[in-house]
Amino acid sequence: MTQEDLRHLFRAVGDGSGLSHSNTYYEEELALAFRNRGMPLEGLRYDITPTGMHYLLIHFDIPAADADSWQLDIGGLVSNPISLSMADIRQRPRVTMPVTMECAGNGRARLNPRPVSQPWLLEAIGTAEWAGTPLRGVLEEAGVGSSAVELVFTGSDEGVQGGEAQLYQRSLTVNDAMRDEVMLAYEMNGAPLEPQHGYPLRLIVPGWYGMTSVKWLNTIEAVSEPFTGYQMDQTYRYKTSPDDPGEPVSTMRVRALMIPPGIPDFMTRTRLMDASAVVLSGKAWAGRLGVTQVEVSVDDGMNWQQATLGKQVGQFAWRNWSFEWDAKPGRHYLSVRATDEQGNVQPSAQPWTLQGMGNNLVQRVEVIVR
Amino acid sequence: MTQEDLRHLFRAVGDGSGLSHSNTYYEEELALAFRNRGMPLEGLRYDITPTGMHYLLIHFDIPAADADSWQLDIGGLVSNPISLSMADIRQRPRVTMPVTMECAGNGRARLNPRPVSQPWLLEAIGTAEWAGTPLRGVLEEAGVGSSAVELVFTGSDEGVQGGEAQLYQRSLTVNDAMRDEVMLAYEMNGAPLEPQHGYPLRLIVPGWYGMTSVKWLNTIEAVSEPFTGYQMDQTYRYKTSPDDPGEPVSTMRVRALMIPPGIPDFMTRTRLMDASAVVLSGKAWAGRLGVTQVEVSVDDGMNWQQATLGKQVGQFAWRNWSFEWDAKPGRHYLSVRATDEQGNVQPSAQPWTLQGMGNNLVQRVEVIVR
Repeated sequence: MTQEDLRHLFRAVGDGSGLSHSNTYYEEELALAFRNRGMPLEGLRYDITPTGMHYLLIHFDIPAADADSWQLDIGGLVSNPISLSMADIRQRPRVTMPVTMECAGNGRARLNPRPVSQPWLLEAIGTAEWAGTPLRGVLEEAGVGSSAVELVFTGSDEGVQGGEAQLYQRSLTVNDAMRDEVMLAYEMNGAPLEPQHGYPLRLIVPGWYGMTSVKWLNTIEAVSEPFTGYQMDQTYRYKTSPDDPGEPVSTMRVRALMIPPGIPDFMTRTRLMDASAVVLSGKAWAGRLGVTQVEVSVDDGMNWQQATLGKQVGQFAWRNWSFEWDAKPGRHYLSVRATDEQGNVQPSAQPWTLQGMGNNLVQRVEVIVR
Repeated sequence: MTQEDLRHLFRAVGDGSGLSHSNTYYEEELALAFRNRGMPLEGLRYDITPTGMHYLLIHFDIPAADADSWQLDIGGLVSNPISLSMADIRQRPRVTMPVTMECAGNGRARLNPRPVSQPWLLEAIGTAEWAGTPLRGVLEEAGVGSSAVELVFTGSDEGVQGGEAQLYQRSLTVNDAMRDEVMLAYEMNGAPLEPQHGYPLRLIVPGWYGMTSVKWLNTIEAVSEPFTGYQMDQTYRYKTSPDDPGEPVSTMRVRALMIPPGIPDFMTRTRLMDASAVVLSGKAWAGRLGVTQVEVSVDDGMNWQQATLGKQVGQFAWRNWSFEWDAKPGRHYLSVRATDEQGNVQPSAQPWTLQGMGNNLVQRVEVIVR
């Protein structure tokens, strides 16, 4: 069965163009929203996100996995192909690290026109404390050959995307894979991974958007050419048109988010609060970079004021910020934006791309003060 | 500020009628879908749902809670008002019980016209092992007076719904509250409740739809008249028109769900599999009642065949079922339906109500066999 055959077998979503100019959503987008949970933004109050509140993006199904028979095979252009059981991996040097992770498609559903895919608003984030063993040690033991340019990571989750039946696969250059912080993780927040987070073993690539941290990892292969699988070449690209190959998506762009103050209206999520001085707070992060500034606007982006930077949870985890606001009666629109150490600042105009990747547009919170 | 004032402050969703005749969805519905996670249906493979996969429905925000200072007050028409710390509650007799829970609005988004609210497809389910202390012992110690007809349970989650600022509150009759299985729960699946599941304390009412199992519980009050708060009188009703008061929603209606076979297409979630004999399986439940029969149709509901009933996970938890299917090439629509011990069977036509409550319409899974 060819790719073309496969494509014809699945109903098109919307008009099939891949874009929607409407601000309503298709049932298929809704189904993805239920599968792929966001972190409710009040969860920004926790330095470490409770496991069940951490965002999830799973392309296919959560596989059934048995840790007792699980095996990680490292092969391809290596001098010493190895196969590790979970017991082998647990006996290796152990590291733990808080890591902030965000989906590359976070904010996609705020774009206009909107790419029809997982319709994230702003909640595709979370910070967990991961435990595992450094990937580098395993790669060194396998002896990655000098002709290898990339490592291909394969998970056991299988499905069809873009008409192509596939296992989920992503690659990293040898240099990126050899970095100190890259980890084979088997625990999250002090417990074995839950099935939906990659049980029993996943890759964690701190600083990068989440697509690279392959879950249910069972194969690593060293290869001599850049890997051109679907999840590298067809998606996770900053494309501006269907013909544009686009740059690959990699590390997370700078972003700040705010805990919406007051109490919510059930349906609209518009906020209600009493007039008073309140402390607005939240988190900010910038991939591998430091956050150097967070600013808040309480007048719908007309004026920006400095927030106070607080504790950074870890080298690869988000940083706290706070801002005192004297809330007067009326309808207000609050925004927050961050700047990283290279001077990148979140945009006020949408950074539109064909696939809706890396959208770090500033958050806007509607608050009614009475 | 009156209710009318409050209502005017929040934008209407859609045309404000509360119903949509379209099969597209509003951004506000999408925002609720991200906050309120479903259980991906492959999760039906687990007798006990992993904590982070269990469905969630939270009307307002997840409150910040401190177990050390948490207090449960039992008052109103009782002879001995008491106030319990978490340490007090943990010292009381401990019970653990697997309980299947489903949101009363599960299936709402499949209705036509569709009530505009939390737009559940089919995933608002889960089974957890809860640990806590029986509510009855606490009520007996407080001495519920003979003039009391109901207990009102108040959580600390606060918001606006239907133009009314409120804490989340539900009531039970004294008889229902005194049943053996009703529990004050502080653990889920062997660990303290996560914040989004009601940390540090919640009510668990086995057999009922989830709205009654009040999270972040801090007050129980015995009252002399049926409680008429928003979550009792204005919602969770089987209404057929705005003027119909409707019967209150209570125990869960009979339902079976199937693990979708094969592998999914990312966007449409249509299934793809190779021709072969496969075992279809899933779970079935019926509130407090037993499931006596599960039937499967492999021809879009034309013919129904008996499935094999398997292990029941607990008195108030779902039951396994399985069915062997010899899958031949082509496009197929699979369905499953259950019957309870009172002879109630899931409907093939939608059980439409104004609020989309208790929709136990049969599941329909599209499968392409190649």
